[in-house]
Amino acid sequence: MVNQVQRVEDTWRTCSKSDSSGASNSGGESSKESSRSSTPVLDTDRTDRLRDKMRRRTESGDHWFSLEFFPPRTASGAVNLISRFDRMGSGGPLFIDVTWHPAGDPGSDKETSSMMIASTAVNYCGLESILHLTCCNQTKEKITGYLSKAKRLGLKNIMALRGDPMGADWEEEEAGFNYATDLVKHIRCEFDDYFDICVAGYPTGHPEAESYDEDLRHLKEKMDAGADFIITQLFFRADTFLKFVRDCRAIGITCPILPGIFPIQGYQSLRQLVKLSKLEVPDEIMRVIEPIKDNDAAIRNYGIEQAVGMCRVLLESGEVPGLHFYTLNREVATMEVLRQLGLWNEDPRRTLPWAVSAHPKRKVEDVRPIFWASRPKSYIYRTQDWDDFPNGRWGNSSSPAFGELNDYYLFYLKSKSSKDALLKMWGEELTSEQSVYEVFTSYITAQPNVAGHKVMCLPWNDDPLAPETNLLKNELDKVNRRGVLTINSQPSINGKPSSDPIVGWGPPGGYVFQKAYLEFFTSSENVTALLKVLKKYEPRVNYHIVNVHGQNTTNAHDMQPNAVTWGIFPGREIVQPTVVDPVSFLYWKDEAFALWIEQWAKLYEDESPSRMIIKYIHDNYFLVNLVDNDFPLDNCLWQVIDDMFELLDNPQEEQPAEQPNDEQSDKEQPGK
Amino acid sequence: MVNQVQRVEDTWRTCSKSDSSGASNSGGESSKESSRSSTPVLDTDRTDRLRDKMRRRTESGDHWFSLEFFPPRTASGAVNLISRFDRMGSGGPLFIDVTWHPAGDPGSDKETSSMMIASTAVNYCGLESILHLTCCNQTKEKITGYLSKAKRLGLKNIMALRGDPMGADWEEEEAGFNYATDLVKHIRCEFDDYFDICVAGYPTGHPEAESYDEDLRHLKEKMDAGADFIITQLFFRADTFLKFVRDCRAIGITCPILPGIFPIQGYQSLRQLVKLSKLEVPDEIMRVIEPIKDNDAAIRNYGIEQAVGMCRVLLESGEVPGLHFYTLNREVATMEVLRQLGLWNEDPRRTLPWAVSAHPKRKVEDVRPIFWASRPKSYIYRTQDWDDFPNGRWGNSSSPAFGELNDYYLFYLKSKSSKDALLKMWGEELTSEQSVYEVFTSYITAQPNVAGHKVMCLPWNDDPLAPETNLLKNELDKVNRRGVLTINSQPSINGKPSSDPIVGWGPPGGYVFQKAYLEFFTSSENVTALLKVLKKYEPRVNYHIVNVHGQNTTNAHDMQPNAVTWGIFPGREIVQPTVVDPVSFLYWKDEAFALWIEQWAKLYEDESPSRMIIKYIHDNYFLVNLVDNDFPLDNCLWQVIDDMFELLDNPQEEQPAEQPNDEQSDKEQPGK
Repeated sequence: MVNQVQRVEDTWRTCSKSDSSGASNSGGESSKESSRSSTPVLDTDRTDRLRDKMRRRTESGDHWFSLEFFPPRTASGAVNLISRFDRMGSGGPLFIDVTWHPAGDPGSDKETSSMMIASTAVNYCGLESILHLTCCNQTKEKITGYLSKAKRLGLKNIMALRGDPMGADWEEEEAGFNYATDLVKHIRCEFDDYFDICVAGYPTGHPEAESYDEDLRHLKEKMDAGADFIITQLFFRADTFLKFVRDCRAIGITCPILPGIFPIQGYQSLRQLVKLSKLEVPDEIMRVIEPIKDNDAAIRNYGIEQAVGMCRVLLESGEVPGLHFYTLNREVATMEVLRQLGLWNEDPRRTLPWAVSAHPKRKVEDVRPIFWASRPKSYIYRTQDWDDFPNGRWGNSSSPAFGELNDYYLFYLKSKSSKDALLKMWGEELTSEQSVYEVFTSYITAQPNVAGHKVMCLPWNDDPLAPETNLLKNELDKVNRRGVLTINSQPSINGKPSSDPIVGWGPPGGYVFQKAYLEFFTSSENVTALLKVLKKYEPRVNYHIVNVHGQNTTNAHDMQPNAVTWGIFPGREIVQPTVVDPVSFLYWKDEAFALWIEQWAKLYEDESPSRMIIKYIHDNYFLVNLVDNDFPLDNCLWQVIDDMFELLDNPQEEQPAEQPNDEQSDKEQPGK
Repeated sequence: MVNQVQRVEDTWRTCSKSDSSGASNSGGESSKESSRSSTPVLDTDRTDRLRDKMRRRTESGDHWFSLEFFPPRTASGAVNLISRFDRMGSGGPLFIDVTWHPAGDPGSDKETSSMMIASTAVNYCGLESILHLTCCNQTKEKITGYLSKAKRLGLKNIMALRGDPMGADWEEEEAGFNYATDLVKHIRCEFDDYFDICVAGYPTGHPEAESYDEDLRHLKEKMDAGADFIITQLFFRADTFLKFVRDCRAIGITCPILPGIFPIQGYQSLRQLVKLSKLEVPDEIMRVIEPIKDNDAAIRNYGIEQAVGMCRVLLESGEVPGLHFYTLNREVATMEVLRQLGLWNEDPRRTLPWAVSAHPKRKVEDVRPIFWASRPKSYIYRTQDWDDFPNGRWGNSSSPAFGELNDYYLFYLKSKSSKDALLKMWGEELTSEQSVYEVFTSYITAQPNVAGHKVMCLPWNDDPLAPETNLLKNELDKVNRRGVLTINSQPSINGKPSSDPIVGWGPPGGYVFQKAYLEFFTSSENVTALLKVLKKYEPRVNYHIVNVHGQNTTNAHDMQPNAVTWGIFPGREIVQPTVVDPVSFLYWKDEAFALWIEQWAKLYEDESPSRMIIKYIHDNYFLVNLVDNDFPLDNCLWQVIDDMFELLDNPQEEQPAEQPNDEQSDKEQPGK
């Protein structure tokens, strides 16, 4: 817990780290110009490079961990790995790294390539990432091409490796890449200081090295060539690593050296890895494992226990600022080890209410439209070509437009669930609009649908209801049953602490606020009644109502954005990370309506009644968003919907109850 | 009252003017781009040109008024007129106009010139202004020079007049300026549509015109040449004006025609004006006035009654959108007429918490440092050369620096009070620092000083305590007595309605917030104790402490600004109009310390004890500002000052009470 508290403080660079060090003494006149062009940045980690983050964490004694993954073989494997990035990213790794598979077209644009997986981790999951790169058998041009592409994609860190020579007849090339040192030199020569460079260390010596000492000298050469830090090969005894660190220090290697931790997860995977890496498993481990080799659970439990014990020794040695985990793309064992060590962040603080991208170009971004709240990856994709990102004011962005809905984009639109699973959730056969309402209601209430299946997702929501939305569950249930098909909502918040576990975000000591928001699809009959009802809520409620053809009705003045989430923090300007922006709503509309067809209607046969029902909704329903501007009062949006139902139920009352009253009140104010 | 409510709504352009007209129906796709580069503007009046404001007010039936002034003869007359602009500006005139005095070097840079007075009204008083300009006996080059200068100074409206020919032997010049029409044509030719142009109308015909009809034809020519609206010469009967309007409409003059109202304020001034303008005073008026011609008060009362009666007829005619007043640079009669008509704005709403400049270049400005809160004119002067003004984010401003403290600037620094009055208030003779403390205390409490004089101003505060500051009066009194010499402060506000009469600002329906702020001079002994005390208030309290030499101590992170006033409004982005900006504080410091010397020390003989005391404070005291970031809680800044006094009173308690406790709490968290 101590580590977690410190991490939070560190991340936010609180206004004074200790009683005295926060006070700065500047020379007065000379510093007048210094902050003229600065923009408020909430999170130092968003701007620092990896080696600086390591330095700060090392100095503050705040241990970190990092996670290694390999690229998947299939597109659906890629979708799963990205979900895993999100889940494991929430635990607070300092970085992740993605291995380089020379045989798998690693630098290509394929969804499964090393390059694209690392880019996804950075851009869409907001993870600081290291891309591995091996150099043997590669031309300088090829390597420079890979590095340029990595830079273009927002990658900032490279793990420079030689890689395994292909074929037995490999020989050193003059002026070629024979060692990782050559690659380090090349990166520094071609890209100056742009990349942070990591290199591999071998606690028991590289299998091909002439000797342990010889190998250490090679490592020193890599550092001298410009590498920034070291991650080691896996090992099984803490002493092995600690001796290695002492030997490194003795020959002048001063950088961070991160131990590679391999929690044993199974008998076969251990044997295979040991064979590949030419390592020897110590007897005391083999003696435990051999008798239980057919019991996977027992081996995993042992592996966790063994890793935790070794990590404790490493951390207590004072020589280890952070631990690097070989995850083998699995979650359970590594997360359990980290939990037992107290390094897993159980209560991740949000920098902003939305997932922040780690792309350096987006580092000033601090406002987004609310519409993509459940689809942050889609938002990032559609704005990836922007030159400027909104900073403080949405209107300040000079970016021209949102990216089109194209095929590659649909990769991110693709549901994580199979067609079979979706049909079970959303109905093998739809008989009416009402059956669609029931799907929404099942999703909201987390109750099984008529066929007995839980609805875990909707086309607009890949995951179950967010904890924040759960606060509104009863009201959402009620309105969805009657065809107000909600896809996004937030409660009003009047100054909760920024540390609030459900709605909090941003640095400690602040206060967060929200205006109530509700977004839904509904029929044109409902919209007609709603528009009448909304007159009573002027100017308290702002609305935008649009159909698939772009027929758009709003009371937003001058198409100005409406801030719906903001925070007040010690010593900072106001942060307003979420807005209802009338212009981007029209782009979102395209996407929101497209999801009816792409994800839902296409589950059914062409011309089938089920497909026709979804198509009818797509063609005829309106997408509505409502904001209750009066955030200190009770949310009035449910009352608005109630009033709409009331009017629909009792249409005859409309005439006497409303129209004359309006006229009369006009007459009472003759000057109006 | 109806007018006032409507004016507010109009000014703020509420989100929908009526039940239906606010809803806009856009074509969808085509409007996607429209707001990308917009910035949030709170006040439409800040961006509209005068003729558009008139059109909007006319359409909504919201009557307005305007005020005419002439330039003063002396510099102190200029200071007085500027105060009058502030006072009369608070009543809500749509515009003011400043007459052109050909004999008074009207286009020069003199403080008293027509040009500079109009510029001051626009830039420093935030008033929409019309500059008169006469053309006869002027070269085109000269006129173009005047117009270019006016444009450069931010003036946007010209009253185009012929002016009285000088000398009896005036003759028409070929290709010269013989009539106002020529000037209108010239303005349109040389400056296209930049200026709004007003021309004069003569309800009884121009005295030099051949006939009334001939004069009407000349007026039509002026309109055809490009004039935008008409202000008439004064008249004494509503019928005179209404007939004139009918005659204008009959020959195709469609623009606004504003009646010139002259409340009779005295017998002599009436006689003089009538003589100059060759008007005849109707018998029914002369019959009332003659008997009371030596009773100024009686004449003024009659003048008010007569003007109110005539204005009522005019407004009720439906032909008069607004009234134009010839004030003769006096306040009482015009204000009384406007009050009786219900046109004077008794409760002026503030657009922002500070005085908004009317210069077109500054129209996006919506953030300022809090330091100049009592000196807005000084702030405007010192930033007049900026190319960009902060909009939303202080850090976004790329403006380089604040203007230097120079002579012209000191004109705005000059106290409105005479040296005699200042000595009475601030002490004929100072005997110690304590006597300075007493001056501050008298100012805060509004109690007479030892010599029996009320202290109505301080060098940093030209006016008595603001209503908002009055909320803090008791605490301010207490601390000033002990040498915490406060010059600026605000209470914390946690979401009061934007319509709050004391702390409210901005459009209706919003909520305003403030962090508590306190700024003061105090001795270095106090500062030493304060710095110790402030450790207990980290990170709740942010501070900046600087002396005249620029020795600066702060706990502001990265010199980032701290928002201390902000507002949340329906359908808008967050507005944060006031910040504590660390960089501008160092410029403010120069000004704040200079005021000790320029305004106070220089009242006394060189080397006199009084002067030495002020000089000592100037050289040795620190300027401190404190912000309590925890705005929802009770303001802790008074506790901070109390703790400082406590520590000064009981210095021996410091060691046992604080230091060991701090260490102990560190030990209780071993991982820290």
